Amino acid sequence: MTKRKIILDCDPGHDDAIAMLMANAHPDIDLLGITIVAGNQTLKKTVHNGLNVAQLLDINAKIYPGMPQPLVREQVVAGNVHGKTGLDGPVFPELHRTAETENGVRFIIDTLMASDGDITLVPTGPLTNIATAMRMEPRIIPKIKEIVLMGGAYGTGNFTPSAEFNIFADPEAAHVVFKSGAPIVMMGLDLTNQTICTPDIIKRMEAVGNKAGKLFGDLLRFTLKTQFEEFGLAAGPIHDATTIGYLINPNLFDLQDMFVEVDINRGPSYGRTVCDENNVLDQPANAKVGKSIDVAGFFDLVEECIRTY
Amino acid sequence: MTKRKIILDCDPGHDDAIAMLMANAHPDIDLLGITIVAGNQTLKKTVHNGLNVAQLLDINAKIYPGMPQPLVREQVVAGNVHGKTGLDGPVFPELHRTAETENGVRFIIDTLMASDGDITLVPTGPLTNIATAMRMEPRIIPKIKEIVLMGGAYGTGNFTPSAEFNIFADPEAAHVVFKSGAPIVMMGLDLTNQTICTPDIIKRMEAVGNKAGKLFGDLLRFTLKTQFEEFGLAAGPIHDATTIGYLINPNLFDLQDMFVEVDINRGPSYGRTVCDENNVLDQPANAKVGKSIDVAGFFDLVEECIRTY
Amino acid sequence: MTKRKIILDCDPGHDDAIAMLMANAHPDIDLLGITIVAGNQTLKKTVHNGLNVAQLLDINAKIYPGMPQPLVREQVVAGNVHGKTGLDGPVFPELHRTAETENGVRFIIDTLMASDGDITLVPTGPLTNIATAMRMEPRIIPKIKEIVLMGGAYGTGNFTPSAEFNIFADPEAAHVVFKSGAPIVMMGLDLTNQTICTPDIIKRMEAVGNKAGKLFGDLLRFTLKTQFEEFGLAAGPIHDATTIGYLINPNLFDLQDMFVEVDINRGPSYGRTVCDENNVLDQPANAKVGKSIDVAGFFDLVEECIRTY
Amino acid sequence: MTKRKIILDCDPGHDDAIAMLMANAHPDIDLLGITIVAGNQTLKKTVHNGLNVAQLLDINAKIYPGMPQPLVREQVVAGNVHGKTGLDGPVFPELHRTAETENGVRFIIDTLMASDGDITLVPTGPLTNIATAMRMEPRIIPKIKEIVLMGGAYGTGNFTPSAEFNIFADPEAAHVVFKSGAPIVMMGLDLTNQTICTPDIIKRMEAVGNKAGKLFGDLLRFTLKTQFEEFGLAAGPIHDATTIGYLINPNLFDLQDMFVEVDINRGPSYGRTVCDENNVLDQPANAKVGKSIDVAGFFDLVEECIRTY
Repeated sequence: MTKRKIILDCDPGHDDAIAMLMANAHPDIDLLGITIVAGNQTLKKTVHNGLNVAQLLDINAKIYPGMPQPLVREQVVAGNVHGKTGLDGPVFPELHRTAETENGVRFIIDTLMASDGDITLVPTGPLTNIATAMRMEPRIIPKIKEIVLMGGAYGTGNFTPSAEFNIFADPEAAHVVFKSGAPIVMMGLDLTNQTICTPDIIKRMEAVGNKAGKLFGDLLRFTLKTQFEEFGLAAGPIHDATTIGYLINPNLFDLQDMFVEVDINRGPSYGRTVCDENNVLDQPANAKVGKSIDVAGFFDLVEECIRTY
Repeated sequence: MTKRKIILDCDPGHDDAIAMLMANAHPDIDLLGITIVAGNQTLKKTVHNGLNVAQLLDINAKIYPGMPQPLVREQVVAGNVHGKTGLDGPVFPELHRTAETENGVRFIIDTLMASDGDITLVPTGPLTNIATAMRMEPRIIPKIKEIVLMGGAYGTGNFTPSAEFNIFADPEAAHVVFKSGAPIVMMGLDLTNQTICTPDIIKRMEAVGNKAGKLFGDLLRFTLKTQFEEFGLAAGPIHDATTIGYLINPNLFDLQDMFVEVDINRGPSYGRTVCDENNVLDQPANAKVGKSIDVAGFFDLVEECIRTY
Repeated sequence: MTKRKIILDCDPGHDDAIAMLMANAHPDIDLLGITIVAGNQTLKKTVHNGLNVAQLLDINAKIYPGMPQPLVREQVVAGNVHGKTGLDGPVFPELHRTAETENGVRFIIDTLMASDGDITLVPTGPLTNIATAMRMEPRIIPKIKEIVLMGGAYGTGNFTPSAEFNIFADPEAAHVVFKSGAPIVMMGLDLTNQTICTPDIIKRMEAVGNKAGKLFGDLLRFTLKTQFEEFGLAAGPIHDATTIGYLINPNLFDLQDMFVEVDINRGPSYGRTVCDENNVLDQPANAKVGKSIDVAGFFDLVEECIRTY
Repeated sequence: MTKRKIILDCDPGHDDAIAMLMANAHPDIDLLGITIVAGNQTLKKTVHNGLNVAQLLDINAKIYPGMPQPLVREQVVAGNVHGKTGLDGPVFPELHRTAETENGVRFIIDTLMASDGDITLVPTGPLTNIATAMRMEPRIIPKIKEIVLMGGAYGTGNFTPSAEFNIFADPEAAHVVFKSGAPIVMMGLDLTNQTICTPDIIKRMEAVGNKAGKLFGDLLRFTLKTQFEEFGLAAGPIHDATTIGYLINPNLFDLQDMFVEVDINRGPSYGRTVCDENNVLDQPANAKVGKSIDVAGFFDLVEECIRTY
């Protein structure tokens, strides 16, 4: 089997860090590069966090800073969930790794244009980098093999009653991506909220006894705390990592074809991924939307990735 | 125990007819009047249907035609679900009953203004009559004991991916009602879709052997067919009747306090009841929203009502 | 020549009072009734003001209170322009006249339904009464001879950069009226701002030496003051009176057929009458929109009306 | 006097070509580069047109293609005004000049970041390049000396009743630019429609007898035709060139400080520059908005520029 070539586009962020850990670890994934976007925190902080994780885990893929602000809206960050740094919890050694000077948007465009249509984009933050790349160079769209993203919900949102954070942080960018025609797999809260990482699971990953297991523990213990405080959840889901999980083993996932439209009206549904779950609009589907996940199988896969370090 | 005084505000409609049947039957309910609104079909048809049901079941409460059109939007009807007449299925005898000449909106206003604050409004159609009454005479609002309505959803809609039909048919009216400050109990699709009326239940009600049981059967056999054809459902829910069920026995219902806002932006979420299920907005709740129902208990109650005829 | 039958629908308001004065005075106008709406002030105040003016000028037409609140939006009033009472300036004698108990909306519906299609509606406030009547009884629409209204602008607004007060105070009602298909003459700010009533004109009307001239003076001296303070205008226009002026002598007016749509999106253009002045949309016109007025001729006409008292 | 350093950001386009002609000609202007955006036609065509004009007039400034699509909305072009090529009318010699490979957005960012805050941006097309640059590198905003743009209107639009083409073609980009905090001079239709180029003026410019005069004639004769056919105008305005005119001689212009907000709600006012002409919102002004122009003085200036070739 050939490796799956991906660009990971993220805003680390605790669950982004686990996505990086897994994407770098698994032999079925060929991680071409990591582009960073503002989201969970400002770009300066998400880049810093990405470099810290990459240095700690010896991730070879280069890190490209992308868009520091959403396409149109004023910026929002998720300090309530990810803390002041955007990656509160772990204590990292002094940082020596540096980011590339090339812009992440440019990297996405150039890499796709030079490709044979075999590259998958994996956005786990706001879709600003992807949308900007699409609008700056629309010829990349037919070059995209698939977009496997974390974002949205057809049920209740988390940042507003209607909207999930990644989409709410840049609804206009999400609108562009969902209307682009590129094949999309959407891991929304409906699925990702199932990946609750209980204290038992944290202990199991730490018990692996390497730096990756320790990082997992340091991250998820913090998430556990904020998820409880913010959402009353008994344990923290690791939303973003489901994208990499899907690329490694899609059999763990139950998806449904849906027509999805992002609401960019600035009312109470701003940033909602309106998913036609029952096909009442009779529109062609533009996304495969995650419904459920084999949670045990998923955490086995996470452990498998951790053990490679 | 004193009887619960109600005005039933409906757009018959199959499930509205069951609500009429139950409201008229049960000794705990004092049905002060029935106001009719356009919704499932045009006002002319919904009034005709209401009169047919009232005549067949010897319902004494007077019938007042209300608003023939929504407050602001262009009219939509639900011919796909309720058929050309709005009550396809049963064959009614020649109609002799007539509607009142007084407008339903006027009846609502005058009845509430003359009351001691002990009247509950039970809207099972679009909220046009209620909203018009509130705007024409805002002093009725503190006179309303409670509004127990069928409409909306915090999950997926039925007429659009976002919206349930009653709210979609007049979002601006719903916006007025949910912002009014009156105490609201909202039976949305999340709860009402659980009341699936299978062929077994239809047979059971018909087996009662009276005219009410026959009407139930004639109505629900038609609903069964359209629910399957339109929504792929294996059986038809009887949405509207849950409101009366709740008034008779609230113990059958699991509700949650939520802040609910109706989206009146004309995008893909037009007519959505945005429900803050997880209280992320930290707004005071303005509605008790139905989450689940004891379905067996509910159908026992329906049968109990049918047996009174 | 037959008299023009009208219902004056107003929210007095200084310029509404002049419209009352003129509609009652002129032999070409048959004033069938006066309906009142909330607008410049709350309904309680606008009714009180209407009664005061009617008593002072011995206006026989009955006064019917209508809608106390806009169709959908939260209420706004124009206390900045019309003062705390809505008619600051004149001192009225003790009030003995009383309003009808019948609702103004009902009066509009019943009067139109009983007519031969020869009645003109003259709204000089928010369009709440008219829109509610249209939605409550759509069969009145083909009965309306014409709607000659004060409201809107194709240039700059006065209450917001986009919107004129009457439309801004109930954009949804205006949306209903402009989409109704009834023939509309719109006197917007583009025209009405030309009717500047200078101190010289005030003196001229007062010089008539009767109670109507004195009322005109008392009203316009106050308006002069607020127009200067609020809008920096050197003199106050008497917007609403242009509607009656047009009905008496349309030759004083230059109108243009336009397609007009009211913006009900809750952004910076909420309540704008979007007028297709250059017909770029190629839609059939739904209104004759006022562009300019023979101001001298108009004030001659005002004086002519004042002299009849 | 030091020369005014500018980047011309355009979508040629007939009036864009005149702006190029003037910016290149006048000794007070230092034309650092020309960035191109999609607008009047697709990017491929506007770049081609820009190169044709640059080659014909020996313009040294480099030409950088920018954004081929608007930030969020679906693309619209103005083929009705500028013809199939976007620059119908003139016949150009075979094209040898080529565009830079560096993206126009990148050029704007890098040039501004390397500057001392003395560079003025002159956008005469949709604001996509400028908005993308601002969002990709917000640190350019305080580096911008001024943005002197053609776009918008506080009166009636030309592409819709509400909106002028440049803003309508990318309202979200305009929203970003007007909210950026950068100092803005807005030449909207209210001013630019005054620059009507009659047949006499065309003859006068052609009489100069050089290639620039001939180009002017070839362009404006075509514009004359389409302006008449599309808008019923007796002669064609040269909107875009007013920006350069202002930079050369601001004394020809009457401006007013206003608070300007771009309407991005997708209703009838989508793309309107809502200008608070009368300061009713009491917001700090964010733009100097053009009200009138000394037309004769402006055409003298155009001729002065033409004579330099």
